[in-house]
Amino acid sequence: MNTNELDFSIQNIPFGIISSASNSKKRVASAYGSNAIDLTLVKFNGPLLGNGVAEKVFNQCFLNDFMELGRPAWREARQTLQNLIKENKLPAESLISLSQVQNHLPAKIGDYTDFYASKEHATNVGTMFRGKDNALMPNWVHIPVGYHGRASSVVVTGTNLKRPSGLILDPTTKLPYYSKSKKMDIELEVAFLVGKGNNLGEPIKFDDSEDHIFGMVLMNDWSSRDIQSYEYVPLGPFLGKNFGTTVSPWVVTLDAMEPFRTSQPHQDPKPADYLTGSSVHNAGDAYDVNLQVYYKTPKSKDTLICESNLKYMYWTFKQQLAHHTVNGCNMNTGDLCGSGTISGPTENSFGSLLELTWNGSKSLNIDGEERKFLEYWY
Amino acid sequence: MNTNELDFSIQNIPFGIISSASNSKKRVASAYGSNAIDLTLVKFNGPLLGNGVAEKVFNQCFLNDFMELGRPAWREARQTLQNLIKENKLPAESLISLSQVQNHLPAKIGDYTDFYASKEHATNVGTMFRGKDNALMPNWVHIPVGYHGRASSVVVTGTNLKRPSGLILDPTTKLPYYSKSKKMDIELEVAFLVGKGNNLGEPIKFDDSEDHIFGMVLMNDWSSRDIQSYEYVPLGPFLGKNFGTTVSPWVVTLDAMEPFRTSQPHQDPKPADYLTGSSVHNAGDAYDVNLQVYYKTPKSKDTLICESNLKYMYWTFKQQLAHHTVNGCNMNTGDLCGSGTISGPTENSFGSLLELTWNGSKSLNIDGEERKFLEYWY
Repeated sequence: MNTNELDFSIQNIPFGIISSASNSKKRVASAYGSNAIDLTLVKFNGPLLGNGVAEKVFNQCFLNDFMELGRPAWREARQTLQNLIKENKLPAESLISLSQVQNHLPAKIGDYTDFYASKEHATNVGTMFRGKDNALMPNWVHIPVGYHGRASSVVVTGTNLKRPSGLILDPTTKLPYYSKSKKMDIELEVAFLVGKGNNLGEPIKFDDSEDHIFGMVLMNDWSSRDIQSYEYVPLGPFLGKNFGTTVSPWVVTLDAMEPFRTSQPHQDPKPADYLTGSSVHNAGDAYDVNLQVYYKTPKSKDTLICESNLKYMYWTFKQQLAHHTVNGCNMNTGDLCGSGTISGPTENSFGSLLELTWNGSKSLNIDGEERKFLEYWY
Repeated sequence: MNTNELDFSIQNIPFGIISSASNSKKRVASAYGSNAIDLTLVKFNGPLLGNGVAEKVFNQCFLNDFMELGRPAWREARQTLQNLIKENKLPAESLISLSQVQNHLPAKIGDYTDFYASKEHATNVGTMFRGKDNALMPNWVHIPVGYHGRASSVVVTGTNLKRPSGLILDPTTKLPYYSKSKKMDIELEVAFLVGKGNNLGEPIKFDDSEDHIFGMVLMNDWSSRDIQSYEYVPLGPFLGKNFGTTVSPWVVTLDAMEPFRTSQPHQDPKPADYLTGSSVHNAGDAYDVNLQVYYKTPKSKDTLICESNLKYMYWTFKQQLAHHTVNGCNMNTGDLCGSGTISGPTENSFGSLLELTWNGSKSLNIDGEERKFLEYWY
């Protein structure tokens, strides 16, 4: 097999937290081919990770200590591992089959923010709830709209979540009643983890923002649409979201994403100076990454329901980080910022069941079964 | 002086984090009269804090380890200190004049939530922005509306904050422009700190909620009204709030608040079962605590501008905690939940400058000077 076609090729070198049957202690790992690489068993001799630094930051149950070292150290780790792979010098004892490792939440997340950065998603949701003429709020094209999420309930993909209960509206009586949510949804998102933070009162400038981003994870912003729609005016989503958010275990660094740079959607009106800086990167500030969502019922096969792309995001991660801190808000290592649902221009690229079923007005065909929301998800 | 009249009487016994000139290490303290009590220098022999437990949990730079022990341990600490004070047996070396200590943030705050629990405040703000007929959203009387705030920028009272910049709306062109905020405001709040949390998926029941609350702090939810009003629809407050939130350094436990129990405002309609439990406490679930706000310009004296009371809060802390977790959202030790601005029924009890000046349409007289928002606060 050509390892360039693997999820974990020599170009990737993601970072995450694992434990294994033979060693239940959580520790930092990378992945290559079908193996995890236990980084506590690899020798790092470089100027930034040598002298005991690697031993210290990789013997941790979260990536935060490693992330705090900054981008030059992340690069050194990646290049060291790439060289060891090329030279076939990874110690045998450091390699553990991915099927034998348990993945854990990669970072201790202090604060979690979720943006709303896909124009198609914001327009779709706005059209459903406010009509076509008021779909996009006037502020949306001027600022990357976002809100604070709940950090405590961000868990690693695969963690069981319970269907939430709460007050939902009876459309007949116009009164709320207590119930399990009947409109459970998913949201296809990509999120970035803050590597190096900033002090309170000192904004991260647009031009410096990439040095503060450690890498990216996939995120599912599980959403209860009936709880959310009853509660969210005027202060935003709360119980409709904070019962659980899942992120993928492997963090892909910005350096690994370099070959996938592309242009972001054309921005009109031109954003304020603090959202543009001196210039975007030659190859663009967005990333061309195919994203897919599969739906599986207890009986069905995995069924593709959405094909989207990270490049559809109107506001880039750089713009999000510059905006988040323009008022002096401080970011800490490990903070998580979600893209918001990434929907594209075509119906099959919508990143939520809300959009794919147009708020339940039509059904999806899941391998012969009809589905609107996650009816059978317990 | 009668110590019953002191902020720090024998009935209070608050907990906080101090350092001092003679010992720059942060550690847990209480306060009595005009002294801090360094709890690392007091002997605790009780069943819960003896055997080295006190030495461990009080030698910390946050209260979290102590808070995690649970309410019986908090009670044991309070009673031990009250007995030592009564018997005049506090070690002399544990007493440091409050004027000689530096106060620090009392808890490591994982997540911070802000409620909107004063009906008068919600009605005032709604009247200003949506008119009298739509002042209170229909959901407001059914659920304690709240939103996720930013934990990273919660700092201890006295910390310098910078006036935030951001996009604000030009009312003539209807376009935003980048500026320092011109409508800086304060919000008079009381917040509670979670002592013991809950697991994801397992709600805290109304009847159990007090055992999860460690105590209360005063909170100022500094707000930039022009940044907030431009950004907050549809996902809620973000940069208008997250540049800084201050909390008082001393946490007053729920046990110390017992004598101040009183009835909450009459709730009509009757809230859902999960918000009422089997019954409220005989003496009521609200607390009768006078609250005052003073305004000081560089030239003026401290000038009283607001006299409110914690009892005006429509939704109690118990209801807030039951609501926050009804969907399974997990709380952690150290999480902070704010009341929202506590405004009372009369104009002099409004807890924000937004309300006191009716969005700047009238001025306050500060010791002979005119003020609307915090014009000269840098």
